[in-house]
Amino acid sequence: MNSTEFREFGKAAIDLMADYYDSIRTRDVLPSVEPGYLLKMLPESAPEEPENWKDVLKDFNEAIIPGITHWHSPQFHAFYPTAVSYPGIVGGLLSDSLAVIGFSWMSSPACTELEVVTMNWLGKLLGLPEEFLNCSDGPGGGVIQGSASEATLVGLLVAKNKTVHRLMVNDPSLKEGEINAKLVAYTSDQCNSSVEKSGLLGSMKMRLLKSDADGRLRGETLKNAFEEDRAQGLIPCYVIANLGTTGTCAFDPLYELGPVCKEANVWLHVDAAYAGSAFICPEYRVLMKGVEYADSFDFNPHKWMLVNFDCSAMWVKNGYDLINTFDIQRIYLDDVKTNIKIPDYRHWQIPLGRRFRSLKLWTVLRIYGAEGIRSHLRNQISLAQHFAKLVRADDRFLVEPEPSMGLVCFRLKDGDSATRKLLENLTEKKQIYMVAATYRGRYIIRFVVCSHLTTREDIDISWKIIKEEVDMIVTPTLHTKTQIPALGHIDIKSLCEKSK
Amino acid sequence: MNSTEFREFGKAAIDLMADYYDSIRTRDVLPSVEPGYLLKMLPESAPEEPENWKDVLKDFNEAIIPGITHWHSPQFHAFYPTAVSYPGIVGGLLSDSLAVIGFSWMSSPACTELEVVTMNWLGKLLGLPEEFLNCSDGPGGGVIQGSASEATLVGLLVAKNKTVHRLMVNDPSLKEGEINAKLVAYTSDQCNSSVEKSGLLGSMKMRLLKSDADGRLRGETLKNAFEEDRAQGLIPCYVIANLGTTGTCAFDPLYELGPVCKEANVWLHVDAAYAGSAFICPEYRVLMKGVEYADSFDFNPHKWMLVNFDCSAMWVKNGYDLINTFDIQRIYLDDVKTNIKIPDYRHWQIPLGRRFRSLKLWTVLRIYGAEGIRSHLRNQISLAQHFAKLVRADDRFLVEPEPSMGLVCFRLKDGDSATRKLLENLTEKKQIYMVAATYRGRYIIRFVVCSHLTTREDIDISWKIIKEEVDMIVTPTLHTKTQIPALGHIDIKSLCEKSK
Repeated sequence: MNSTEFREFGKAAIDLMADYYDSIRTRDVLPSVEPGYLLKMLPESAPEEPENWKDVLKDFNEAIIPGITHWHSPQFHAFYPTAVSYPGIVGGLLSDSLAVIGFSWMSSPACTELEVVTMNWLGKLLGLPEEFLNCSDGPGGGVIQGSASEATLVGLLVAKNKTVHRLMVNDPSLKEGEINAKLVAYTSDQCNSSVEKSGLLGSMKMRLLKSDADGRLRGETLKNAFEEDRAQGLIPCYVIANLGTTGTCAFDPLYELGPVCKEANVWLHVDAAYAGSAFICPEYRVLMKGVEYADSFDFNPHKWMLVNFDCSAMWVKNGYDLINTFDIQRIYLDDVKTNIKIPDYRHWQIPLGRRFRSLKLWTVLRIYGAEGIRSHLRNQISLAQHFAKLVRADDRFLVEPEPSMGLVCFRLKDGDSATRKLLENLTEKKQIYMVAATYRGRYIIRFVVCSHLTTREDIDISWKIIKEEVDMIVTPTLHTKTQIPALGHIDIKSLCEKSK
Repeated sequence: MNSTEFREFGKAAIDLMADYYDSIRTRDVLPSVEPGYLLKMLPESAPEEPENWKDVLKDFNEAIIPGITHWHSPQFHAFYPTAVSYPGIVGGLLSDSLAVIGFSWMSSPACTELEVVTMNWLGKLLGLPEEFLNCSDGPGGGVIQGSASEATLVGLLVAKNKTVHRLMVNDPSLKEGEINAKLVAYTSDQCNSSVEKSGLLGSMKMRLLKSDADGRLRGETLKNAFEEDRAQGLIPCYVIANLGTTGTCAFDPLYELGPVCKEANVWLHVDAAYAGSAFICPEYRVLMKGVEYADSFDFNPHKWMLVNFDCSAMWVKNGYDLINTFDIQRIYLDDVKTNIKIPDYRHWQIPLGRRFRSLKLWTVLRIYGAEGIRSHLRNQISLAQHFAKLVRADDRFLVEPEPSMGLVCFRLKDGDSATRKLLENLTEKKQIYMVAATYRGRYIIRFVVCSHLTTREDIDISWKIIKEEVDMIVTPTLHTKTQIPALGHIDIKSLCEKSK
């Protein structure tokens, strides 16, 4: 393909995707395909001869799009958002087109330096303590990781390395393997699966401590866990605090956990994957009170801050801790030595290679501006509150716990099985997508404002879809536990009106 | 930004990057900037107000491009290639635009299934044993990882999990931590830094065994290492064989390592990061003889196969080994259960989230066709051979070892310091970029045909640049160890002509 064809192909793809977003409300959020649909549609082997890009776009439309779960449909309310934005897409396009690998300064100076610049910008926007910033006097700094999973694992490995080193310096007779076997990591039972997985990956015992009734890991609980483990000869090493848990968006009190970690010389990592974006709005910073105790902090602009996946923003107070853990030198990597202020980012991460991800971040920060991003976040939170209001106005429902950020959790008063049935039916109809969680032992439905395109009207539509379904489940007929007839052409709405 | 502006911005970016490639030969491969150049140019904080995309593209041109090391300049001969192609860029654009996260089938069926389809296509193109393919009867299959580093680490963690499980089943009195401390991984002293790093990351002792004179890890060496370690109570667990080492592109003999691993019940992972692409050409498959012994196999289409970073293709013979290692269940991930044939890829990798990377692979495979890719690879190898011929025709040089794939290693007969001086001078002049390695204790320069745009004329230009520099270093004057005068306006070429 020559550059003339690329211009045609690329522009056709831009138009196709603009059309996709212009018409996204015409599609069901969930696709109507069965497992294996694409395996049946596509040939068993790659083509031998080159094919025309027009045929590829045609098949993209006819085979791929029908199998897409539309994460940016305004009726996508599952999990947490993954970001997309037009500036983010074009930033990614520029990065993919330059296609440089930024493992060292020399391998593309702009790739390293724009990451330093944008991570300083972002850290300031969040109001992080200056120690975390590359532009401070100390050895702190930011790095873009591929995911919060990677950031949690990086933190764990660094904590392990530091602890082992410290203990061996104190007592040279100790063996690394013996120490490793005694190290313990801690987080709450509300943690994301990726947090638990980091223990598995990093071979460290991970204790999921009991959260309080509001889903928060408390300082006292952590302190007791440290003491229990020490009494058994184990060594507390790493704590992951969650700011915005996956289930209910609860915030662990850093101001409680921090002093406990500090006193015990344990690395404190903050996982604010989803909710961290909100700290760009000063009114939410109270939720990270105590962040000055953290050794590392991570959140995902690729979730809620309009930067396309992958862009997980991680800061540490001491970049040398990373370098000491990850530095493997080779002659072919023996380039100009730079200082901690212009990092060789390969020592700050798991893989050797890295894309020019800061371009996306830069494009988004400039084209939205800080105010644009704040207004996006505040709007999404207000839309969640609007939804909560709609749910609360219907006395068949309970909103529980209190809405947090863009998340509203709710359930039917009729009980878990009715709530479960509601979610199953809705999922089957494919017009709205939500997932479940548990709260105080009850089955709840999580409704998250995900798409950045969402308007108040979209929320009303989502509520209408839910309401229509619940009208079919929670009726006086059902309350008396007799079977409702097959629905066919019955006018459910008028039926419900009558029953009120 | 609305979709109308996106169409404008996106198309302007497409044109900009097409222009970039059309004019790439007018730029020095290495940028003329000092460390910190961009930190000085850009503001200290993100803008508060939204900015126009035209200003962003302007700054991209004026601040970012001048700090780029042009990995796709035909005079970029450093490291190994990272891939770029027009179809790969547009595939990435489509993926970034859909912006779905494919951690489970339901989170976007097409995302999972296109990965299955294209990894089957690719495995067949490489001539991998059928056991590795999802379309076989068994539990094998392919998955796209972010990097060879990740694939090596995934293999290590799986090997560790399997070994620990096996030993604990045999002897329930054993403790996991004690077993972990005894596990050993093996690779050659020619391995990539990322391979060594995987031991660090996965907390497993990693032995870098001595390679033979040709840079290959031999079966006998591995067998002896197993025996030595067993005698000390250690447990051989994981072997990484290198097909195409980073230094000199040597190929470990799998047919020797395989039987040793099999006999010892040790997981054999094949890292063919760069050279693996060549197996698409049947004439090179002899270099992976014995691949049927491997438990996992990985290569990077994002290096030499025209698919943009990141796309590291990994196959395993048994997908359940991955699931058993990485499965962390959560209620919000409790979706439709699928079988091993339609994998929940989150259990096949380190992070939870994953982009729709197979779109790039699909676009490239279709628009080039298998024949187009083979012709690209064969062309690059023939260009390397053309370069080797030019070097050999100049009796000041030695080509050593034999060229392999797109790599030609050479040095000056004058000795290491002259060779080093040559490389330093060339790097300083920024017109060509190569890096060093060592071979049999000698300092060598690695010349890799990297850019897919490279023609025979480009190779001639690269050689001319090298030759002009060496003419200044290796002259009769230098041979007699007297100082040559400052070069100024001396006509070096005519000086050299005279000295012949």
